[in-house]
Amino acid sequence: MAKALPKRSENYSEWYNEIVKRADLAENSAVRGCMVIKPYGFAIWEKMQRALDDMFKATGHQNAYFPLFVPKSFLEKEEEHAEGFAKECAVVTHYRLKANPDGKGLIVDPDAKLEEELIIRPTSETVIWNAYKNWIQSWRDLPLLINQWANVVRWEMRTRIFLRTAEFLWQEGHTAHATEQEAIDETHQMLGIYAEFAEGWMAMPVVQGIKTESERFAGAEETFCIEALMQDGKALQSGTSHFLGQNFARVFDVQFVNKENQLEYAWATSWGVSTRLMGALIMAHSDDNGLVLPPKLAPIQTVIIPIYRSPEDLATISKTLEPLIGQLKAAGISVKYDDSDHQRSGWKFAEYELRGVPVRLGIGMRDIENGTVEVARRDTLTKDSRPIDFSQPEAFVAGIKELLDEIQDAIYQKALDFREANTFLVDTWEEFKEQIEKGGFIMAHWDGTAETEAAIKEETKATIRCIPLLSADMAGKCVYSGRESPKRVLFARAY
Amino acid sequence: MAKALPKRSENYSEWYNEIVKRADLAENSAVRGCMVIKPYGFAIWEKMQRALDDMFKATGHQNAYFPLFVPKSFLEKEEEHAEGFAKECAVVTHYRLKANPDGKGLIVDPDAKLEEELIIRPTSETVIWNAYKNWIQSWRDLPLLINQWANVVRWEMRTRIFLRTAEFLWQEGHTAHATEQEAIDETHQMLGIYAEFAEGWMAMPVVQGIKTESERFAGAEETFCIEALMQDGKALQSGTSHFLGQNFARVFDVQFVNKENQLEYAWATSWGVSTRLMGALIMAHSDDNGLVLPPKLAPIQTVIIPIYRSPEDLATISKTLEPLIGQLKAAGISVKYDDSDHQRSGWKFAEYELRGVPVRLGIGMRDIENGTVEVARRDTLTKDSRPIDFSQPEAFVAGIKELLDEIQDAIYQKALDFREANTFLVDTWEEFKEQIEKGGFIMAHWDGTAETEAAIKEETKATIRCIPLLSADMAGKCVYSGRESPKRVLFARAY
Repeated sequence: MAKALPKRSENYSEWYNEIVKRADLAENSAVRGCMVIKPYGFAIWEKMQRALDDMFKATGHQNAYFPLFVPKSFLEKEEEHAEGFAKECAVVTHYRLKANPDGKGLIVDPDAKLEEELIIRPTSETVIWNAYKNWIQSWRDLPLLINQWANVVRWEMRTRIFLRTAEFLWQEGHTAHATEQEAIDETHQMLGIYAEFAEGWMAMPVVQGIKTESERFAGAEETFCIEALMQDGKALQSGTSHFLGQNFARVFDVQFVNKENQLEYAWATSWGVSTRLMGALIMAHSDDNGLVLPPKLAPIQTVIIPIYRSPEDLATISKTLEPLIGQLKAAGISVKYDDSDHQRSGWKFAEYELRGVPVRLGIGMRDIENGTVEVARRDTLTKDSRPIDFSQPEAFVAGIKELLDEIQDAIYQKALDFREANTFLVDTWEEFKEQIEKGGFIMAHWDGTAETEAAIKEETKATIRCIPLLSADMAGKCVYSGRESPKRVLFARAY
Repeated sequence: MAKALPKRSENYSEWYNEIVKRADLAENSAVRGCMVIKPYGFAIWEKMQRALDDMFKATGHQNAYFPLFVPKSFLEKEEEHAEGFAKECAVVTHYRLKANPDGKGLIVDPDAKLEEELIIRPTSETVIWNAYKNWIQSWRDLPLLINQWANVVRWEMRTRIFLRTAEFLWQEGHTAHATEQEAIDETHQMLGIYAEFAEGWMAMPVVQGIKTESERFAGAEETFCIEALMQDGKALQSGTSHFLGQNFARVFDVQFVNKENQLEYAWATSWGVSTRLMGALIMAHSDDNGLVLPPKLAPIQTVIIPIYRSPEDLATISKTLEPLIGQLKAAGISVKYDDSDHQRSGWKFAEYELRGVPVRLGIGMRDIENGTVEVARRDTLTKDSRPIDFSQPEAFVAGIKELLDEIQDAIYQKALDFREANTFLVDTWEEFKEQIEKGGFIMAHWDGTAETEAAIKEETKATIRCIPLLSADMAGKCVYSGRESPKRVLFARAY
C-alpha cells in the first residue's frame, strides 16, 4: 500500500502538491517554473476546454490564432499595460545558436542579434489590436468576437504548479464593438459564462464582482472577476473579464465609420481563464484520500474493477460484463474496465480513489451469482450493493447516470455549504484581524480609498477580492477607517 | 465586383497568396515570419485537429503538454539533432524589461540575464525524453503513447504563409516502446493514419515512402513521409513519422526493466503534421475562382442565399426556409443562411465561391412558387434546379447529404487523376532534365548514393521525395550514373 497523503488539516500545501503528483496530473519540468501537464491532468483540461469552447461558440465567438511574439515596441505603446507586464517576461534577443569555437557545445551566435527584441506574449492585447487595425473599417465589421487558445509566459519568481507557473495555457477572448454599451454587455456576458462554467461544470460556487482599481488588469477601465473559496480558507481568482474602453483602439489607431458616417474608436473587451482552474478544481473538492472530480469533468466517470482469484473467474467476469460496459458507453458514460493483473483490487480501489473517479463498480463471482454490483461513490466514500440483470443492464445503467448527476450536484452543494459556513460579516477591525487568521471570506465595509485598501493588505495580507455584483447596497462604516461605505466588499487572503 | 484572382497558369504563387488573403484564411503579422490565422482559416484547422485527434485517441494515444522552452544544454546532448535545429531558433536570454533610464520606452534589463539560455522549442524530443526518464521504469510502463498539440518556432529566412513560417502550429506524437519491432510498427501505423487523413479528409492523394538519409529528421534512424503533388507540379511533404531507435533514450538515459528483468533503453518514435497542411489543402484543389474545400473540412458545408427584391419577399423566403435549415442542421450539415442586406446576391455567390463552400443553395420567390431550389456545386461550378417540399424537406436534405459525399469523392478523384497524369517514368538523364522543368512526379532509378542525389539536386533542384513503400522492386539503371538500382524512387521539386 502506498503511503497515505498528508492531511489537509496538517499541511494543506503539501497535501496539494502530493495530490498533483500522485493523481498523475502534472509535474515540474526541468525548466524553472514550467510544468508538464501529464495525460490524466490534460484530459481534465481538455474537458474544460471543450465545455468552454462550446459556450463561446454558442454566443457567437470564433477562434483564431495570433503570434507568440510581441515586438518590444508594441508593449511600450500602452503605458499602464507595459508597466503591468514588462517586468516579468521572457525576452528573445537572438535567432541562432552556433557551435562553440572554444570547445564543446553551443553558444548564442552574436551575429544573430535581433534588431528589435521579441517578448513571449504575457497576454495578447497589443498583438491582436495591431491586427484589428486592418480588420475594422466600418460598423458592419463589428462586433468582432474572437477567442484564442494559447500558451503565455509570465516570469514569476515564486511558482506553484497550476496556480502560478511561468508558462501556462489559457484562452483569451478579444472583442471589438461599435458602442460602449455593447462592450460592457459583452464583459458581463463572459463573466456570466465563466460563472456558469465554474458552478455548472466545476461544481465550484463563485462570487461575481468588480475589482478595485489597484487590482485591475493593466490597461483596463474595469475588471470583473469570479472568486472561489478554497478549503484552506483562501480565495482563488478563477477568471477575469475586462472592459477595456477605447484604450487599445486609441493606441493602435483602430477607428471605424459608424452608422452616422463618423470615424470612431472601437470599444474593447478581453477575458480569460487558464490552467489555474486545474488548481482551483483540485483544491475546491478533494479530500484526504485524494482527488474528487465532478463527473462532468472526470476523464473516467466510472471505473469497473473485477474481483477474482483465478484467471477462469476473471474470464467469467469479463464475459458477463460485456453488455454492461457496452450500455454504459452507449449512455455516454466514460468507463474504464481495469482488468490488469499485476495489482490487487485493493490497490486499484485506492488508486482510483486517489484519481477522483466519481463512481467505482466492484464485481466478484458472488455478485454474478446474486445479480448484484457494489457501487461506491467517491465524493461521500459510501457504497451499496445494487441489483443488476447482467444480460440486460439498461435499468442499472440508468441508475448510474442518475447517480453521476446526483454526485455533480452534491459536490457543488458541499462546496456551497462550506463557503456559506466560511463567509463572515465583520464590522470591527479587531474581529477582522482575528477572522482573517482563521481564513474564509470576509464581507466588510470599506471606505473606497486605495490608502485603506493598502493599509489593510499591509497589516493582514488580506486583499479586496471584489466588490460583489449581487451584494445589497447597505450603507455602513469602513471596518478600518470608520468612514462612510455604501456596501460591503469581499476580503480574503488569496492565491 | 471585386477584382478577379490571378490565374494559376499565369502566376501560381500570387494566386496562392491572393486566395489565402481573400478567402480570409490568414495574414502575415507584424512579427517577421509569423502569421495570424484568421477565424475562417482557423475553423478549417480545428476540423483537421478534431479528425486527427479522434484518430490518435482511437489508436490509444493520449494528449499531454510539455514546456515551450528547451534549455540549451538539452539541445546540445544529441549531436545530429542539435546540428539540425540549433541553426534556426529563437533564443531567450533575459527575463525582464525595464524603463529606459536614458529616455522613453523599455530596454532589456541587463541584470535579468538567464544563467542558461532557453530555446523556443523547434520540436520537443529533448524536453519530452528528459521527462520520460522519470516515467519509465518497467516494461509495464510501456508503451507510452503521447501526443501534444503545440506551437513551435524555427527561424526560417524565407517564409511563406502556412507553408513555411517561423512560428507554426502542429501536433507532435512521442512514443516509447519496449521493443524495436513495436516502435517500427508504431511508425508505420502513424504514417498510415496521416495517409488516411490526407486522402479521406483532405481528399488529397499521397505517396507513402521512406526518406533518404540526407532528408532524414535530425536524430532519426528512419523517416517516413507522405508526399502530395500540388497543381503547379511541385511536391509538398505533408507529414512525417520517425523511427528514432534508442538515440534519445540513450542521450536522456531512459532505461527500463524488461520482461527478462534486464535493463534496456526504450525505443522511440515521433511523428507530426502542422498548419502546413492548410497550404497543401489550398494548393491541391483550389481553382481560378478561389478556394475549393472538401466537405469534410469545410466550416460551412452549405450556404443558402435568398434572392429577393423587397423586405416582404425576404421575410417570406426566410419563413419558408425554416424547416429546411432545421433539417439540414439535424442531418449534421453545417449551414449558413446569409440574409445580410448590404450585399447583392451576385456578390454573395462570388464570395462563397471564393471561400470554397461546397454547396450553395439559391432560393427566390419563383422557387417558392415552383417548389424548387437552385443547387450549385463549388467543385464543378455546375448547378441544377431540384424539387423540394419546403414544409417537409427531408428528401431534399438527404439529396444534399449525398451530394456532399459525392463532392468529397469527386475532389479526391480529380486530384488523383491529376497526379496520375503528372507522374512520369523517366529513364534517361535528358528526359529527366526536360521533365523536371515541366513539373510533376518523376519515378526514376537511383544508384542509392548521396553523391548522385546531391548532384541531381544541384543540377535540377529536384530532390528525392521518398522511396515509395508501394513501388515494385524492379531493377534498373540509375538515371544519372547508370549504376545498378533496385527500384524507382520519387523525384520532384518541392515546397
